[in-house]
Amino acid sequence: MVVVMQERASEEQIEAVIERLVDLGMDVHRSSGASRTVLGVVGPNKIDSALIQILDGVKEVVRISEPYKLAGRTFKPNDTVVTIDDVRIGGDEVIVMAGPCSAETEEQVDASAAAVKRAGAKVLRGGAFKPRSSPYSFQGLGEVGLRMLRDAANAHGLKLISEVMDVSQIDLIARYCDIFQVGARNMQNFTLLRELGHQQKPVLLKRGLSATIEEWLMSAEYILSGGNNGVILCERGIRTFETATRNTFDISAIPVVKKLSHLPVVADPSHGAGRRDMVAPMARAAVAADADGLLIEVHNDPDRALSDGAQSMFPAQFERLMAELRIIAPAIGRSICLEPVARRGWA
Amino acid sequence: MVVVMQERASEEQIEAVIERLVDLGMDVHRSSGASRTVLGVVGPNKIDSALIQILDGVKEVVRISEPYKLAGRTFKPNDTVVTIDDVRIGGDEVIVMAGPCSAETEEQVDASAAAVKRAGAKVLRGGAFKPRSSPYSFQGLGEVGLRMLRDAANAHGLKLISEVMDVSQIDLIARYCDIFQVGARNMQNFTLLRELGHQQKPVLLKRGLSATIEEWLMSAEYILSGGNNGVILCERGIRTFETATRNTFDISAIPVVKKLSHLPVVADPSHGAGRRDMVAPMARAAVAADADGLLIEVHNDPDRALSDGAQSMFPAQFERLMAELRIIAPAIGRSICLEPVARRGWA
Amino acid sequence: MVVVMQERASEEQIEAVIERLVDLGMDVHRSSGASRTVLGVVGPNKIDSALIQILDGVKEVVRISEPYKLAGRTFKPNDTVVTIDDVRIGGDEVIVMAGPCSAETEEQVDASAAAVKRAGAKVLRGGAFKPRSSPYSFQGLGEVGLRMLRDAANAHGLKLISEVMDVSQIDLIARYCDIFQVGARNMQNFTLLRELGHQQKPVLLKRGLSATIEEWLMSAEYILSGGNNGVILCERGIRTFETATRNTFDISAIPVVKKLSHLPVVADPSHGAGRRDMVAPMARAAVAADADGLLIEVHNDPDRALSDGAQSMFPAQFERLMAELRIIAPAIGRSICLEPVARRGWA
Amino acid sequence: MVVVMQERASEEQIEAVIERLVDLGMDVHRSSGASRTVLGVVGPNKIDSALIQILDGVKEVVRISEPYKLAGRTFKPNDTVVTIDDVRIGGDEVIVMAGPCSAETEEQVDASAAAVKRAGAKVLRGGAFKPRSSPYSFQGLGEVGLRMLRDAANAHGLKLISEVMDVSQIDLIARYCDIFQVGARNMQNFTLLRELGHQQKPVLLKRGLSATIEEWLMSAEYILSGGNNGVILCERGIRTFETATRNTFDISAIPVVKKLSHLPVVADPSHGAGRRDMVAPMARAAVAADADGLLIEVHNDPDRALSDGAQSMFPAQFERLMAELRIIAPAIGRSICLEPVARRGWA
Repeated sequence: MVVVMQERASEEQIEAVIERLVDLGMDVHRSSGASRTVLGVVGPNKIDSALIQILDGVKEVVRISEPYKLAGRTFKPNDTVVTIDDVRIGGDEVIVMAGPCSAETEEQVDASAAAVKRAGAKVLRGGAFKPRSSPYSFQGLGEVGLRMLRDAANAHGLKLISEVMDVSQIDLIARYCDIFQVGARNMQNFTLLRELGHQQKPVLLKRGLSATIEEWLMSAEYILSGGNNGVILCERGIRTFETATRNTFDISAIPVVKKLSHLPVVADPSHGAGRRDMVAPMARAAVAADADGLLIEVHNDPDRALSDGAQSMFPAQFERLMAELRIIAPAIGRSICLEPVARRGWA
Repeated sequence: MVVVMQERASEEQIEAVIERLVDLGMDVHRSSGASRTVLGVVGPNKIDSALIQILDGVKEVVRISEPYKLAGRTFKPNDTVVTIDDVRIGGDEVIVMAGPCSAETEEQVDASAAAVKRAGAKVLRGGAFKPRSSPYSFQGLGEVGLRMLRDAANAHGLKLISEVMDVSQIDLIARYCDIFQVGARNMQNFTLLRELGHQQKPVLLKRGLSATIEEWLMSAEYILSGGNNGVILCERGIRTFETATRNTFDISAIPVVKKLSHLPVVADPSHGAGRRDMVAPMARAAVAADADGLLIEVHNDPDRALSDGAQSMFPAQFERLMAELRIIAPAIGRSICLEPVARRGWA
Repeated sequence: MVVVMQERASEEQIEAVIERLVDLGMDVHRSSGASRTVLGVVGPNKIDSALIQILDGVKEVVRISEPYKLAGRTFKPNDTVVTIDDVRIGGDEVIVMAGPCSAETEEQVDASAAAVKRAGAKVLRGGAFKPRSSPYSFQGLGEVGLRMLRDAANAHGLKLISEVMDVSQIDLIARYCDIFQVGARNMQNFTLLRELGHQQKPVLLKRGLSATIEEWLMSAEYILSGGNNGVILCERGIRTFETATRNTFDISAIPVVKKLSHLPVVADPSHGAGRRDMVAPMARAAVAADADGLLIEVHNDPDRALSDGAQSMFPAQFERLMAELRIIAPAIGRSICLEPVARRGWA
Repeated sequence: MVVVMQERASEEQIEAVIERLVDLGMDVHRSSGASRTVLGVVGPNKIDSALIQILDGVKEVVRISEPYKLAGRTFKPNDTVVTIDDVRIGGDEVIVMAGPCSAETEEQVDASAAAVKRAGAKVLRGGAFKPRSSPYSFQGLGEVGLRMLRDAANAHGLKLISEVMDVSQIDLIARYCDIFQVGARNMQNFTLLRELGHQQKPVLLKRGLSATIEEWLMSAEYILSGGNNGVILCERGIRTFETATRNTFDISAIPVVKKLSHLPVVADPSHGAGRRDMVAPMARAAVAADADGLLIEVHNDPDRALSDGAQSMFPAQFERLMAELRIIAPAIGRSICLEPVARRGWA
């Protein structure tokens, strides 16, 4: 911590600040310039900078350590690769997770899974518990939906990711899924994060609608500090004044997070954009900005979807997008799944 | 719902939209102007406007009902007054809830309770479970803290409010507190809100950092729809680009919410400002803008507080603030608690 | 400037940063802790911190001087009072400036001026050049409007403030007005600010819609550095995600600016709110938060106004607001103009 | 315009609204549903919706025409291509404009121009008048700088774009440049926009830091309505709560604007990111999202640049970026300039 005193700070004020810091168990290095005194503060680093900020004569307090440790590149310089069997998130290949917003019927889930597999997705996404802002909206099928999703994932050779909303759902979801998804609204549900830190399966952590990147990494820290190293970050748009899109997809978060943290970062252009015709450009942009993966809503019949139909892609749109992404990925030295049918053709 | 077609929309496009709406069970009234067609849509009102928005030829879809019902003035024109014995929140008197951020020791809780009671507060606030953005920060004393708070509230004739973070804490907190507090980070923890809807005690619901007023009222709806009518809304600052304060206290939310909803609205200037010297001006402003109450952090020794010390007021500052508020409240035809000592003097 | 090196910074990286700083003419004080090196940098203070930020091994660069000088309390600890004859902005009295958005007709201007004078305003506001976001909207009457406003101000014993949009309008507006108003959209029109720095008359500088407080003070610095000390700051709302009001009135900017700067701060609740029924609560809040004045749109017949009619108060609403403000101002040790008619009655 | 009445609106209120609208010269179509009345309003369309919004009984007013006309796709369905000799902005080729932030010396301008030409840029960018937020910063070389830029552009076969900050600079800049650049801070300098509407040369209009897309298109309308059809829009980042980057580059603005307007849209990743190491990912993302061009700061020696050095690319970085973009562009059916030297080599 660096404490910058005001130009007009008196000697008494400076000494009072030093005394307070020493009281709190810190070592203080005083450095007096022509017009201003600066205090370098070293120690066990658990003091709240706001407490010093309000002392008389203090102009500014600057933290010099990130509040996160395990999530930072300082702690672990090399990229983390989250591995589920042969699916490696954070490696050279861009991993695409796709599927319907919610599980609705067996046919819908199976048809959607078949479509995303055909186009090259490696992970099936789909919700059984839905966080809906209205208590009167469709809230998901629960375990029945999870079973449909698992069956479809197995049938088509896909891994499965699904959202967990509350501690009470963890055991159930763990029985069916390969990856837990934590939604934007739960990014600071610390009780939930702490429990997920004790799980064996990886967690995809979406950025909160108004979360700073630092807060997002702090939430990852909650999971990591419990012993679960499989954290995947997911950018899905932040809230700004612009109303033309539901959220503002923060494309720059991808390179920023990759600089600060070793964790893989994927992008959710479906929620970032909120409408189907914006998903493809945002998905292409995310891959061009070096995202490690994508999370995309695809529905076999979006016009009949019970939730998020407007932002779900048609299978044909998704296939075309995948073809575009296969052109873009090599620009940054990455690959993306070849179309399995074609691959089988080669065997 | 009103569907506005593009100027260049073809007859086929218009008919396709109408057909889709009829499919969804709605009645459609078509109104064609010189340059544009507008469709009035009436019905059971559960369709997602985004689904229509993306149809060819549609320019804009306008919802004409609020998504909330029980929380709105349309449903209940008269102000709701939340009553706990003789404390009435939403009536003529401005109710002040004050106390330390966290319960730390019996002495600290008791001294803080004595101080806020003396100055005119009616409700003691204090946390036993703390939502901290770092897993390494003080997380609260749990039940031990709740007992300290209850004892101090009883000793000084105050009601008690404390934060609930998870469904698993509800029963415990209900045994000790008069009002549940839901923090900003949990405003969209729908599992929690739903459970609180089945409780008998009132709930103070803080606005999320990036929540629109409509989303805030939708979260209130979750509680109300479960049968719990005692919802108190609490503005505590939103996230903006300004970094001079921790949050931007949205003072205009107070009159806006009072226009849209019958629920009482209180203000939390401590979190809105984030630093002690900004609390008094924000508290005065909130009362001048017609807030029904205030939630203020006061600590008997803020410099030694384990959390939020920088934004906690000293007892003497709080007393002075209360004196200022007693001048302001009559400007809008309201009262604020007389200093109890003085009152006793009159008896 | 304080340069914080990364924990893993090598000795070569640290030396390269020091060399670069010395090259730029700075003195560097190196302070090595157990895990991290911090560099204190002193000097003529014109280097761009971003240049150092991007050097290898640098974690963070912290500026320790404000970029503004003349506008800061460090430079001038005592409050500035801007004086126009007997009107003192920044003194004990809260000064109210009110009138129509635009000058439209002689009758309208005169009736509005009479109304605001009667209620206690000291300055007439009104526009002759209007910055309209549509090229097809009413753009103001120009010099004809200025003359109407000056005549009405003279007739009713009021000072006059009017907006200047471009360097080419300065001479003309100076002939008619007592205070120049710079609108939010021109807060960073540096060519205009520089010219106003050479004028004799005070300048009311509105905060830009997305301007930080620091940028606002930097724009004030442009005017002050030209030799014009009469700068009045005006908060009018910032842009956020909330759409229930046109802007979010940043009430906390008032105490923050008063801490950082000696310049008077007034509030414009009409633009901050954007609708008539929100103006009174915002105006009361601003005075309660210690604003030095208010800028309010009042029109003798708002329903017929050519611009901003929806946010203009009726004369009777304005009178009632002034009565409320007279109750609030003493809470913070200030006064507000007595109703002149009453005062005359006492003579 | 559609006026939605409140559920509880009385017949008197409805009639008062209709009367007001008729007074304003509009035709009103009344449509009464079971619970609510909706009024369709048609007419010369110049009324301020806020005026109706505040009438008693009104719930919401919805505009059904965009406020812009000439800038919209309704007016002109086909893409506009802005042509300067053989450079076509808005056609199949992605046009790159690059060069230093400011003209500093002949050598610097020439070396930078040579570098960007070699890598495939078609337009040289560089400032002679600089909008600096501090009055104490380098303000540009004025005409001397313009001459350096023109000479370098001519020497290397590039077109030239440079910023205009005030009406008084238009004639001078027009003598030297091929495209006028309007900076973000001047996006609502309506006096300047109006004058540029009378010029023959195209105008690149940057989006303001807090401008909505609609406001941006309204500012384009100012230029178009004066008769100048050569408007190029430029996204450069908006202001949000995130502080890890200087601005949040709004990547989704590119597809949104292309849907609403026929005008070409380019991206400025240098200002959007604010630091050199973020420019390449943002530039790649912009092209992947279908931007018609890029505006990039490149300096022959960024470490010695007088302004924006931290966000200026080194020539070698820029070359590498161009190579990456040549891989990405075909993914969306576009091309990007081949390296001229290589091309010559083929001839």
